[in-house]
Amino acid sequence: MKTSIATVSISGEFPEKLAAIAAAGFDGVEIFENDFLAFDGSPADVGRMVRDHGLEITLFQPFRDFEGMPEPLRSRTFDRAERKFDIMQQLGTDLVLVCSNVSPAALGGIDRAAADFHELGERAAKRGLKVGYEALAWGRHINDHRDAWEIVRRADHANIGIILDSFHTLSRKIDINSIRSIPKEKIFIVQMADAPLIDMDLLYWSRHFRNMPGEGDLPVVDFTAAVAATGYDGYLSLEIFNDQFRGGSAKAIAADGHRSLIYLGDQVRRNPDASTLTMAEMPERAAVKGIGFVEFSADEADAENLEKILKALGFRRTATHRSKKVSIFEQGGIRLLINTEQQGFANASFAVHGTSAYAIALMVDDAQQAFSRAIALGADPFIQQVADGEVEIPAIRGVGGGLIYLIDANSELGRFAEIDFRPATDDEKIVPTHLQHVDHVAQTVAYDEMLTWLLFYNSIFEAHKTPMVDIIDPAGVVRSQVVENISGTLRITLNGAENRRTLAGHFIAEKFGSGVQHIAFHTDDIFATAAALRANGFQPLTISPNYYGDVEARFGLDPDLTERLKADNILYDRDDHGEYFQLYSSTFGEGFFFEIVQRSGYRGYGAANAIFRIAALKKALRPEGVPKL
Amino acid sequence: MKTSIATVSISGEFPEKLAAIAAAGFDGVEIFENDFLAFDGSPADVGRMVRDHGLEITLFQPFRDFEGMPEPLRSRTFDRAERKFDIMQQLGTDLVLVCSNVSPAALGGIDRAAADFHELGERAAKRGLKVGYEALAWGRHINDHRDAWEIVRRADHANIGIILDSFHTLSRKIDINSIRSIPKEKIFIVQMADAPLIDMDLLYWSRHFRNMPGEGDLPVVDFTAAVAATGYDGYLSLEIFNDQFRGGSAKAIAADGHRSLIYLGDQVRRNPDASTLTMAEMPERAAVKGIGFVEFSADEADAENLEKILKALGFRRTATHRSKKVSIFEQGGIRLLINTEQQGFANASFAVHGTSAYAIALMVDDAQQAFSRAIALGADPFIQQVADGEVEIPAIRGVGGGLIYLIDANSELGRFAEIDFRPATDDEKIVPTHLQHVDHVAQTVAYDEMLTWLLFYNSIFEAHKTPMVDIIDPAGVVRSQVVENISGTLRITLNGAENRRTLAGHFIAEKFGSGVQHIAFHTDDIFATAAALRANGFQPLTISPNYYGDVEARFGLDPDLTERLKADNILYDRDDHGEYFQLYSSTFGEGFFFEIVQRSGYRGYGAANAIFRIAALKKALRPEGVPKL
Repeated sequence: MKTSIATVSISGEFPEKLAAIAAAGFDGVEIFENDFLAFDGSPADVGRMVRDHGLEITLFQPFRDFEGMPEPLRSRTFDRAERKFDIMQQLGTDLVLVCSNVSPAALGGIDRAAADFHELGERAAKRGLKVGYEALAWGRHINDHRDAWEIVRRADHANIGIILDSFHTLSRKIDINSIRSIPKEKIFIVQMADAPLIDMDLLYWSRHFRNMPGEGDLPVVDFTAAVAATGYDGYLSLEIFNDQFRGGSAKAIAADGHRSLIYLGDQVRRNPDASTLTMAEMPERAAVKGIGFVEFSADEADAENLEKILKALGFRRTATHRSKKVSIFEQGGIRLLINTEQQGFANASFAVHGTSAYAIALMVDDAQQAFSRAIALGADPFIQQVADGEVEIPAIRGVGGGLIYLIDANSELGRFAEIDFRPATDDEKIVPTHLQHVDHVAQTVAYDEMLTWLLFYNSIFEAHKTPMVDIIDPAGVVRSQVVENISGTLRITLNGAENRRTLAGHFIAEKFGSGVQHIAFHTDDIFATAAALRANGFQPLTISPNYYGDVEARFGLDPDLTERLKADNILYDRDDHGEYFQLYSSTFGEGFFFEIVQRSGYRGYGAANAIFRIAALKKALRPEGVPKL
Repeated sequence: MKTSIATVSISGEFPEKLAAIAAAGFDGVEIFENDFLAFDGSPADVGRMVRDHGLEITLFQPFRDFEGMPEPLRSRTFDRAERKFDIMQQLGTDLVLVCSNVSPAALGGIDRAAADFHELGERAAKRGLKVGYEALAWGRHINDHRDAWEIVRRADHANIGIILDSFHTLSRKIDINSIRSIPKEKIFIVQMADAPLIDMDLLYWSRHFRNMPGEGDLPVVDFTAAVAATGYDGYLSLEIFNDQFRGGSAKAIAADGHRSLIYLGDQVRRNPDASTLTMAEMPERAAVKGIGFVEFSADEADAENLEKILKALGFRRTATHRSKKVSIFEQGGIRLLINTEQQGFANASFAVHGTSAYAIALMVDDAQQAFSRAIALGADPFIQQVADGEVEIPAIRGVGGGLIYLIDANSELGRFAEIDFRPATDDEKIVPTHLQHVDHVAQTVAYDEMLTWLLFYNSIFEAHKTPMVDIIDPAGVVRSQVVENISGTLRITLNGAENRRTLAGHFIAEKFGSGVQHIAFHTDDIFATAAALRANGFQPLTISPNYYGDVEARFGLDPDLTERLKADNILYDRDDHGEYFQLYSSTFGEGFFFEIVQRSGYRGYGAANAIFRIAALKKALRPEGVPKL
């Protein structure tokens, strides 16, 4: 399997696109004709530029409205093809894509189309070129790859083959098993695109909503496995039309695209159908057993305030680092670190973003294996400076450039706390608040990074994504999507902010950038926790009293329960699987905040309560009467 | 007819929403329950705030999943309703919206639902409240206003009525004549929303794509005329779910909403069905006869350069202002003004935006009538300072705060050039270039202003909008939509830029703001014009040679014609109605540019050529080899 991407998939002018595609590690590139036409180098120049980047031109496309034309249009269409053949020879590519005719002038008939392709094959053969035929999902007469294949079969010409495109097949829910019987040498190239499942006009969906394999909801792995079952081991080539990608960073989108194909190939490689697929092996996705720790970077002043809050939340200082200014605070299975070092990455992060949760440690079975997979999927490694004898933990860069440490229970890495730290205790009286583990970590990102990080997490770790949910902030919509595993030991909510007046957008714009905006801890008894918090002097976020009348009526709650919820500023939700209680802190400065949840079978994240929580957080952020956000 | 808007339609926290709604001139407001719940004032406080703004609460909504519930859910639902009634009485509103049940638990049956509503009517009547029933387009059993009406009819209770919503009816293409037979006293309120015609899932379409009446493609005027035929003369209330509006400026979106209802009411008032509709009269939409002039603000240095370009384009100085530093340049029917005054609005515009086309004069039949209509529709008047004896031209603020002068041929306003100016001539030899009139003016706006200005132009002037077209800039998609009249004497293309790396986005972000990015002049003979431009030393924008091979093949052009196009850097397009030739200047600084077109029956604006034009403009903007954008 080799990787390719169409120039139309990413933003920028032609040279910028090529540079980004080469840098991302692709083997080849499809030249989308308009990109070439708008560039003022000659076809030969373009071919040379591509090869100078170490890339192959996998395809020249699209050639539209070819088959089934009546005369005199038919003759003109063949003339047009000859012109394209000229350009292809100058470019130095041998394959052109003909997509099924959408012209009102086109005549139907499999044999008519097959005859046209036979003639085109003859002409192409004279020049040593090949023609691939693709069924557009909205083609006038041909909109199904099975019909396109029948035309190719009857055209019966070595220089005529089929081009498969996952979107065109999967958007129309065409049986993918029909691919398995196509001879592999007749599949000239395979184009890949995914898309979110939204029921809409196929052309509109295709032109605006396509995304990288694994970023959407289509069964692209099954599709590719069916392709691999033919023995096809050639290019998988991304052809993505997406308004957001067209306006995004060419470098970032190309990197996402390459990751998506490597991940796709790895999934398919593990399929018995795909024994012939050539690609590098890598470890399986890492199962995450829990959040090992969350580390905050802070200066001394902020650290003091943060320690006070952690203590009010029931955490105790349990250890301090032997050589660095780092403390561990613990409660239940939760470890939080505060790092006030004046040098190193934590300090650099503090300098840019202020006090923030800049690192998360994920507990996996084998940290080195997880690290290898991440690197194979293009993650950036993070190399830390450690003193002699101290533990070096494998780490990669995550959301906003923050760190993801990979720790395991079986290696000494899992015991780093005992090696690098010495026990410590403070003197205060802290009432334990029954917090047991991290329920979820909420990361806020710019909206156009959502797909990047969903793919990042899901490709490296054993996890799936939930459907996107709209969170209503008074200043705009925030999109929320969750990366989680079945056992619930990994739950990361990604919130994508479109404008800076939302709480999420403000967080990013103010200075924190994309990163952890809140951490939710789990308790088995929210009311016992609330009482203990009170005893510790913790100030919960005040929720509007109007909320409680509604929640009581909506769920038919016992009025006594409603009173208790209201007294402790606890939010309530319920689904078919159980109940959910939520209690919040205010924000630390204008940045992160804490949540405490009691999750009793419930599978969501309280999206229906978000508007009330956001309004309350925003109110707490501003001086009385003056809207700050 | 009275105007209302649901709080959910605009952004902001509750007090900000109310202030924006009141400022826009609405008579009433629907309280969307979540907005109220998230706010921490009591219901009585909220009611007082609304009334303090001079607004009436027209509706409390939504009450979901009411009718057809089996026990024990049914009892709980009635309890829930009583709770809402409590809140309504505290708020001080007498009408609640019940939308058709979407719960899987709901049972069908018209009579069952009617019985439920009868009982609810009895309960409401005890408190002096009313309940309106609305059919959601995706309701489980009821998704058609005709069925909702049948339930209301059978409920047979004075306190139960129907609520019509244009989106729910029009999205499902339900015959609107079915509305005419509903007794007006049973229509408790009418909700209005439009939407662009995109074939997609109804719920997704409704939740994300609704827009203001007249901003979309639904037949909202026909719908409202059918409502008016019943004699209904109550509230038209906007209920708009739109992601862009949720994130936009509350003030601007509320103003658009109010304009949309006034415009809607005015269209309906002119309908014979709507004789009973109470609303202020205003003049009809003004027919635009042409572009009277375009005025540039500049400093002396830029003015000198701009004059050189205008002269190269074949324009001659024909007049100078008697009291101000303003010159008129003319050719054919085109007048361009350059204003270098050191004070006044032009200078203020120059100070902010640099040299730009800050004012356009539209020729209408009756300038005062057009001005009155504009003001009635909420346009901002512009009052200019003129010397004694000079002509004061009615003007309003348009895109980006620029001016739209309204001039007419029948009043002395049309002769202002003769009154305020004296003839002038320069000495140079200028070859006339056959330019005859302004073909179109292209205004670039932030994407989220597109709907604002489409509604602005279409409501004030006799014009229609064309479908939205995607313009592919290498750095992202730019949306283009045209305001034009049938005779072609008004053509304004609006280009909405989503990011600042597109040419359009760069124009806005750099300093020019929303405004005129290019002016297209019409010639009857593009080749004669090109020859004359050459003689005047005009440098056309250089188009990639790759373009010409494609355009020749695509349209089957005579190779001689292709050679001529290429020699003169002319772009070519064709539609079913005729041909289109385009020739461009480079940008003036990093700002506006000029286009010359020959339009022979052709109805578009060369969208297919835009990618080549944009690539060429961007190339011309940057020093060799260094991408500037």
